[in-house]
Amino acid sequence: MNEVIETILAHKSIRKFKDKSISEEMITTLVECAQAASTSSYQQVCTIIGVEDQEKKQKLAELAGNQSYVADNGYFFVFCIDYNRHKVAAEMLDKNINDTIQSTEAFMVGTVDASLAAQNVAVAAESLGLGIVYIGGIRNNLKEVSELLDCPEHVLPLFGMAIGYPDAEPGKKPRLPIQSVFHKNGYKKNEETKKLLNQYEKETAEYYKKRTGGKRTEGWVTQITTSMSSPKRAYMKEFVREKGLNKT
Amino acid sequence: MNEVIETILAHKSIRKFKDKSISEEMITTLVECAQAASTSSYQQVCTIIGVEDQEKKQKLAELAGNQSYVADNGYFFVFCIDYNRHKVAAEMLDKNINDTIQSTEAFMVGTVDASLAAQNVAVAAESLGLGIVYIGGIRNNLKEVSELLDCPEHVLPLFGMAIGYPDAEPGKKPRLPIQSVFHKNGYKKNEETKKLLNQYEKETAEYYKKRTGGKRTEGWVTQITTSMSSPKRAYMKEFVREKGLNKT
Repeated sequence: MNEVIETILAHKSIRKFKDKSISEEMITTLVECAQAASTSSYQQVCTIIGVEDQEKKQKLAELAGNQSYVADNGYFFVFCIDYNRHKVAAEMLDKNINDTIQSTEAFMVGTVDASLAAQNVAVAAESLGLGIVYIGGIRNNLKEVSELLDCPEHVLPLFGMAIGYPDAEPGKKPRLPIQSVFHKNGYKKNEETKKLLNQYEKETAEYYKKRTGGKRTEGWVTQITTSMSSPKRAYMKEFVREKGLNKT
Repeated sequence: MNEVIETILAHKSIRKFKDKSISEEMITTLVECAQAASTSSYQQVCTIIGVEDQEKKQKLAELAGNQSYVADNGYFFVFCIDYNRHKVAAEMLDKNINDTIQSTEAFMVGTVDASLAAQNVAVAAESLGLGIVYIGGIRNNLKEVSELLDCPEHVLPLFGMAIGYPDAEPGKKPRLPIQSVFHKNGYKKNEETKKLLNQYEKETAEYYKKRTGGKRTEGWVTQITTSMSSPKRAYMKEFVREKGLNKT
C-alpha cells in the first residue's frame, strides 16, 4: 500500500467545507491533473469551467436542488463535454465534422473523457487534504445551467465538483461485495448476483440501522429499487439532442 | 507536489508490456480502488470483467482492431455499464425499473460511474509501477465483444484497459493549452479559442516533426479534423438501444 492507493481508498464525499478558499496555485495543479488523464484518440473532449462568481454559484446551488455546498466551498468546477473546440478547429480548415460530433459514439467518448479528467482532479484534491463531492444535481436543470455558463452548441455540462477544506467527517457506506462487481472472463449468472445482493441488503440495512439509531432498516436493494422506480430527468434525451449531441 | 500528483502528471499510455503477470493481490487492490470512486446516488453502475483466458484475450485483440497489447499484457480489464444488477435487485422486490434504466440520463450516469472507477484503477496501477492503456477499440465490434463476455441486456462493455509492467518509454504528447480547457465563470468566446488552437497547431506540429524526423508536419487541428471527418462506429446508436440503454 502506498500513498496513492491510501488516498484513493480513503475517499468519502464531503458536503460541508470550511470558509477558506483554495489557492490559485492549487487550482492550476488540479486542472493540470485533469489534462493528464487519458483521452480517446487524443481528442481531449473536456472543458472545465471554474465558477468563482459567488452569484453564479448561488444560482447553481438552487438549480442543483438547493444544495448549499454548491455555493459554500473552496472552489467549484463544472466538467463539460466539449465538441465546440473541434468544430472550431474544423472550421479553421473549412471542414464540417458535425456528423461525427452528433453521434452516440462521440457522446460516449465525451462523457468518458470528462469523467477521467474529473477523477484525476478528485484524487489530486484529496491528496492535498481537500475534500470533494460530485454534483450530478446540475443535471436537474441542465438548460438553465448551460445558459448560466454560456455553453454553446456541442458543449454539455456533465456534472459539477465542489472542493474545499473538509468541515465534516462522514461515514463510509459499504460498497457492493467485490464478487458482485468483479467478474472473471465473462458476466456472472444472475443466481449468483441474487445471492450477493441478499447478503449486501443485510449488510447495508445493518449499516443504516446503526447510523440512524434504528430508524432506517432498509438496505441497498430496497433503497435502489425505490429510488429507481420513477425515471429521473426525463427531459434529458431531448435536451442533449438540442445541444447537438447523442443524435445519430 | 506530492507522490499522488506526481503519479497523475507522469501518466503516459503504455502499449508494450513485459511478459510478466500481475499478482492476484494487486488485482484485488485495483478493483477495490475502482469501487472506492464516487458513484451517482450510491447506484454503483459499474461491473469490471477481468479477462484472464488467453484465447478470449486473443479474440478481444482482434475485435479491437488487431491491437497486440490487448492480448499481451499483465492483465486485462473490461469496464462495463451495468444496470442488470439493479434490474435483478428490483425483481427481488417484484418491481420493474426498466423505464429508468433505459433513459438517456441513466446512460450518462452509467458511463460516468464506469469511467470514474476506471481512472482510479489507472492511477493506482501507475503508482505500483505498472503501465496502462485504455482500449476504446473494443467498441469497434461491441456486439461481438458483448457476446464473448456473456453480457446480458442492460450491460454494456464501455472500454478495456490493458495493464502490465512497461516495456516501452513513449513520449508525452503536448496537451491543449490550459487556457483552452479551463474557462472561468462561463464558456469562452470562439475568437479566443481560435487563437489558442492556432498556437496549439504550431506546438503539436513541432512535436510531431521532431518525433518523426520531419516526416509528419501537421498539428492537432489538422489531425483531429481529418480523423473526425467521417463518423466512427455509426452502428452504436442502434446497438446501445438493443442493449436496453439510451432509449428514452
